[in-house]
Amino acid sequence: MKIAIIGIGLIGGSFAKALRHQFPEAKILGIDSNPSHLETAVAEQLIDEGAALEDLSAVDRVVLSIPVKSSVSLITEILDRIPSRALVWDVGSTKSSICRAVSQHPKRDQFLAAHPIAGTENSGPQAAQIDLFSGKPQILCEAKKTRPELLDWAKTTFRQMGMYLRFMDPEEHDKHMAYVSHLSHISSFMLGKTVLEQEEDEQNIFDLAGSGFESTVRLAKSSPDMWCSIFEDNQSHILHILNAYIANLEHFRDLLQSQNYIDLHNQMKHTNQLKTILNGIKTK
Amino acid sequence: MKIAIIGIGLIGGSFAKALRHQFPEAKILGIDSNPSHLETAVAEQLIDEGAALEDLSAVDRVVLSIPVKSSVSLITEILDRIPSRALVWDVGSTKSSICRAVSQHPKRDQFLAAHPIAGTENSGPQAAQIDLFSGKPQILCEAKKTRPELLDWAKTTFRQMGMYLRFMDPEEHDKHMAYVSHLSHISSFMLGKTVLEQEEDEQNIFDLAGSGFESTVRLAKSSPDMWCSIFEDNQSHILHILNAYIANLEHFRDLLQSQNYIDLHNQMKHTNQLKTILNGIKTK
Repeated sequence: MKIAIIGIGLIGGSFAKALRHQFPEAKILGIDSNPSHLETAVAEQLIDEGAALEDLSAVDRVVLSIPVKSSVSLITEILDRIPSRALVWDVGSTKSSICRAVSQHPKRDQFLAAHPIAGTENSGPQAAQIDLFSGKPQILCEAKKTRPELLDWAKTTFRQMGMYLRFMDPEEHDKHMAYVSHLSHISSFMLGKTVLEQEEDEQNIFDLAGSGFESTVRLAKSSPDMWCSIFEDNQSHILHILNAYIANLEHFRDLLQSQNYIDLHNQMKHTNQLKTILNGIKTK
Repeated sequence: MKIAIIGIGLIGGSFAKALRHQFPEAKILGIDSNPSHLETAVAEQLIDEGAALEDLSAVDRVVLSIPVKSSVSLITEILDRIPSRALVWDVGSTKSSICRAVSQHPKRDQFLAAHPIAGTENSGPQAAQIDLFSGKPQILCEAKKTRPELLDWAKTTFRQMGMYLRFMDPEEHDKHMAYVSHLSHISSFMLGKTVLEQEEDEQNIFDLAGSGFESTVRLAKSSPDMWCSIFEDNQSHILHILNAYIANLEHFRDLLQSQNYIDLHNQMKHTNQLKTILNGIKTK
């Protein structure tokens, strides 16, 4: 089996490691516009060698793990190039636009829209982890449009990586992701920006960060390339939830200003119920 | 040595454990308005027995670890009751109001305003950890107003717990804490509130939380009693930084609405520098 990974970053590199573990005989090619990523990926044995889009004519599987806007631009060319036995899956954080981009393609049934809910704030091939996907959900969209035997192979492979599968409509996926994930990133990026602007003494950021800042701002270390692409692609859902967030912050500000500590306390107590919901994750 | 811990929660309980480790012969009394906290604390051997404020007349050391507004109300009574050999330190997240409350007290030099930058999102005596303070900063305010031999004892004791000491003016402390810590908590509480309101399907919160939400919302599990008290006590600094945060979010929203992705990208890239600053913490 020949596998091509397009985009050897954290996610692409982790798929390379997990696929090599499952298919030790497979030859893994890497395609990346950043030559130093390819070098690192070869040195760390994530891939066997670098390759180009032309080489897709002889592959069996393709992992598409580049920023979402680039995936949407490239997916039809990839489908054009692959042989009829091959399967391509993407890993993008939005799913509507890529599903629209392939909808009329004659090889639509060789594509699977996927989104592994896994990652860290680190990027690049050196951040890849063999067990990144273990215990994590893999969201599949429009799975019925993928050729049954290719879908079966993918489901088995993802499950062997330790993932559990969920099936969603692409538009629903993008809305839920805006609410639960994308807003968290904006909240964190703007928190980091505000503190950098207002707190001039870096030593204080050092010393006081353990009091909550460090975990809340973790996502502000994320890749601007990846996240700008997501924000662009999911603009309307994000605007909706961002406005709701700003309205809640303004309301909190007004309660604080008017010293209405009873309502402030009630809001916090109500939000505490997240403990129960999030503990549910742990037991999965 | 006889030590009284007023408020046997996460912080008070962790001090009990760390002090018992350092002074195995000490008798540790617990004072808490919640009888089940006292029961747990005795059962887990954090304290030797429950006590009342009257018992302070025979103690050598007092740890005051209750919500800041309550500490401010109680501190003069505590100083009134302790013998002249005793030292009291508080652990509150704001320092100006408690320093003001003791400023004219005849036993001012038996008080030390402290703030250990340590904690978890869990509360109660069962959350206490013997090494909670290890490697963490202990902020001391107006340390020169504490009687030198009591201050020396405290510095040695805190350092033996693994803490490193920083000295700050109380007003400066409260400003920096509003910026770096208190804003993070508001950001997290309101993120949690927004997602609970907008995302009705708890299964989606479960499954998608790994994509950033879980870490960003961690602080929204914090104690409303403790945090309402902090917000009330540090209202003016918090209003300042909260308005700056809201303005940044509104600007981000406007850039997204007008599809100005170049400026969005620049903002995120600039904020990435937090990586370097926060990595500094780790090497401390």
